[in-house]
Amino acid sequence: MPAPPTTVTVPLPGARSYPIYIGPGLHSSHPALLRDQVKGTTCLVVTNTVVAPLHLSRTVAALEAKEGLTVHTLVLPDGEAEKTLEVLTLIHDKALENALDRQTTFVALGGGVIGDMVGFAAAIYQRGVDFIQVPTTVMAMVDSSVGGKTGVNHPLGKNMVGAFHQPNCVFVDTSTLDTLPDRELRSGLSEIIKYGLIRDPAFFEWQEQNLPKLLLRDAGTFAEAIQRSCENKADVVAADEKEAGVRATLNLGHTFGHAIENGSGYGKFLHGEAVAIGTAMAASMSRRLGWIDEAVLQRTYDALHLAGLPTELPLDSPMTREKFEKLMSVDKKVSNGVLRLILQKGPLGTCVFTGDFDRQAMIDTIDDFCSELG
Amino acid sequence: MPAPPTTVTVPLPGARSYPIYIGPGLHSSHPALLRDQVKGTTCLVVTNTVVAPLHLSRTVAALEAKEGLTVHTLVLPDGEAEKTLEVLTLIHDKALENALDRQTTFVALGGGVIGDMVGFAAAIYQRGVDFIQVPTTVMAMVDSSVGGKTGVNHPLGKNMVGAFHQPNCVFVDTSTLDTLPDRELRSGLSEIIKYGLIRDPAFFEWQEQNLPKLLLRDAGTFAEAIQRSCENKADVVAADEKEAGVRATLNLGHTFGHAIENGSGYGKFLHGEAVAIGTAMAASMSRRLGWIDEAVLQRTYDALHLAGLPTELPLDSPMTREKFEKLMSVDKKVSNGVLRLILQKGPLGTCVFTGDFDRQAMIDTIDDFCSELG
Repeated sequence: MPAPPTTVTVPLPGARSYPIYIGPGLHSSHPALLRDQVKGTTCLVVTNTVVAPLHLSRTVAALEAKEGLTVHTLVLPDGEAEKTLEVLTLIHDKALENALDRQTTFVALGGGVIGDMVGFAAAIYQRGVDFIQVPTTVMAMVDSSVGGKTGVNHPLGKNMVGAFHQPNCVFVDTSTLDTLPDRELRSGLSEIIKYGLIRDPAFFEWQEQNLPKLLLRDAGTFAEAIQRSCENKADVVAADEKEAGVRATLNLGHTFGHAIENGSGYGKFLHGEAVAIGTAMAASMSRRLGWIDEAVLQRTYDALHLAGLPTELPLDSPMTREKFEKLMSVDKKVSNGVLRLILQKGPLGTCVFTGDFDRQAMIDTIDDFCSELG
Repeated sequence: MPAPPTTVTVPLPGARSYPIYIGPGLHSSHPALLRDQVKGTTCLVVTNTVVAPLHLSRTVAALEAKEGLTVHTLVLPDGEAEKTLEVLTLIHDKALENALDRQTTFVALGGGVIGDMVGFAAAIYQRGVDFIQVPTTVMAMVDSSVGGKTGVNHPLGKNMVGAFHQPNCVFVDTSTLDTLPDRELRSGLSEIIKYGLIRDPAFFEWQEQNLPKLLLRDAGTFAEAIQRSCENKADVVAADEKEAGVRATLNLGHTFGHAIENGSGYGKFLHGEAVAIGTAMAASMSRRLGWIDEAVLQRTYDALHLAGLPTELPLDSPMTREKFEKLMSVDKKVSNGVLRLILQKGPLGTCVFTGDFDRQAMIDTIDDFCSELG
C-alpha cells in the first residue's frame, strides 16, 4: 500500500464531512480511495467527449476492480453551452434505462461543467443519490468540485437552477492536468488568485512568485496551489455551507463574470476568463470607491496578467451597460431587489460582501469597461 | 382577530418545524397566517387552469394585503401528464423574467401535481427558495402537501426526479373542497384509508363509520379526517424525514399504483384511484403470503368500496405482468436490485416495509389482477 496522498477535509456537521484526495497518478496508486466511496452495487460515470478518450478508461478501471460493482458510463457533449436541464435529463434517462436505484453513485469525471451538472443530477435523482467528484481541470480541482454547489444554467441566468449537494469525496489526480489545454489551465488560475485576494494574502504573495511555474505546469508547485486553494475553500464552506454570508465572498468577480459569460453567449469565454475580467472590474470599482489603494489595484491586475488572463472585454464584445444591468439584476446575490457585490476593501487579502455602495461607481465602472468597445 | 384555526405541527430539527393550518374559509378569516409566512418582497403564486378561476383571486387577495409585497401569478396546464421538467421550467422562466431573487416565496395553489411541482421548482430555484402549500384537493390536504416530498415524473418512472424540500407552512382552507369534483374527492380518500391500514386502527374504525359522511362532504367530518391524517403524516415525517425507513410505509399500495399510473399513461387514473387498486393488490398479496387473515383483507376491500374507489384494473387496462415488473424495477424502494414493498402483516393497522417475501406471491398477485383483462 503506497503512502496516503495529501488529504484536505471539508468539515461538515451530521457526519457529512468528506475528504479531498490530491496527488499525481492517484488512479493508479490509490484506486481504492475512489472505489471505497461507492456504497451500492452500481455506479454511473459521466464525462464529456473531450475527457472520455483521455481519462475515462482509467476511472472505470479503478472502479471496476471493486467486486460486485457494475460500472455504467455516459459521455455528454462538452462545454458551458451544454450545462442545461435538457442535457442533464440524459443522465436520468441513462440511469433509469439501467434501473439504477437510490443506492447508486454518480461519478463526475471532468471540469466544472460536468461536476456541476452531474452533482445536480445526483441531487435530484430519486430525491438524491451519492456522487463523487473526479475533477480534471484546474478550475474544478481548486474550486468547483469542492463545496457542494451544483446546478445548470438557464437562458436568463447562469447557475440559476441547482442545489447544495455535497460529494462523498473529491478525487484529484493531478496527472489528468497533463492533457489540459493551456487556455483551460490559465482559466483555472483565476480562482486560485481569488483566494489570495479575498482572504489569504500570504497565498497571494506566494502566487506572485509562483504563477510562472504554474504556467510551466511544475507538478510540485501545482500540488501546493491546489492544496492551499482547497484548504481555503474547505474553511469557507465549513463556516457557511449554504451561503448565508461569508461563502458569497468566493464569488469575487463572479457577478460581473456571469453577466459576461451569459451576455457573450455561453462558450465564448471559459468561466475563469470571464471571472478574471470580472475581478478586474470589481477591483476597478473598489478603487473608484476609494476602498483600496492604487498598489492593491495594481497587484491585482499584475497577478491576472502574470496568469495570462484577460482584464478587459475584447473589442468585439457585445456587452453594454444595459446588458450588464439586466443580467446582474437576476444574480443570486440580489436580496429583496438590492444587488450585493464582493469588493476588495482595505489591504490586500480583505474584502466585503455588501449592497451598501454608491451605485454610480458601479455604473461608471461598467461604462469604463464597455467604452473601449467598437 | 378570530379564534386560531386547528393547527398541526410538523416537528423537524434545525428550526424547520412548520404549521399546518386547517379550517373552513381560512382565506377570509385568517389571511395573515398565509402572508406572514412570506419573508421577502415578492412571491409567485402558481396554480393550474382548473383551480385558477375558482380560487386564485382569493389567495392573491390574502397575500396582497401585505404592505410592500409584489404578488406574481402563473397558471399552468392541469393534470398528472403535465408534471414534467418541461412544465416546471415555465415556473423558472416566469421567476427570472421578473427577476425574483433568493428571498422570494413560491406559493403552490392546487392539488398534488401543483404542490409537488412547485415545491420542486422552489427547491432548485437559485439552489432553494421558500415555498408555501395551499392545497385544494383532499389528496393534497391529507398527504402530498405535508412532508416536503417534491418532484416531477420522468417518462420512465413516476416522481423519479425531485428533492426533499419542506414548506414554510401548509394552509388548508377546507372551503376550497366545495368546488372539488366527486371523483377527485374519492381519490383523496385512498390516502386517508392508508393511514388507518398502516398505523392507526382506531382511525380506520372511525373511517368505517364515517366514509359515507365524507362522500356527502360533511364539513365537520372532513375537518376531523384531515386533522387526523395530518397528525399521522407529521408523526411519520418527524420520525424519518428523508425516508430511511418507516416513512416508506406511507407508500402502501404506491409501488403497484405508480406502475399502474405510468403504464396506463399519466392522466388515465387519478393518483388515489391507482393507489386504491395498488392497495387492493398489496392486501391480496399479504393474504396470499398468509400475513393477514381473511377478515383484514375483507375490511380493506370494504373500506375502499365504501369510498367509491376501484379495487381492480378496468377491462381495457393495458397492464400486463411484464409491464408491472419493468415499471416496478425502477421504483425508488428498490435497494441494490431488490424490490421492497409495504405489506400489511398482522392485525389491522400494522404493516412491514420489506424485501423479504416470496417473489412468487407477488407474481401470482399481479397475474391474478391482470387475468381478468381481455
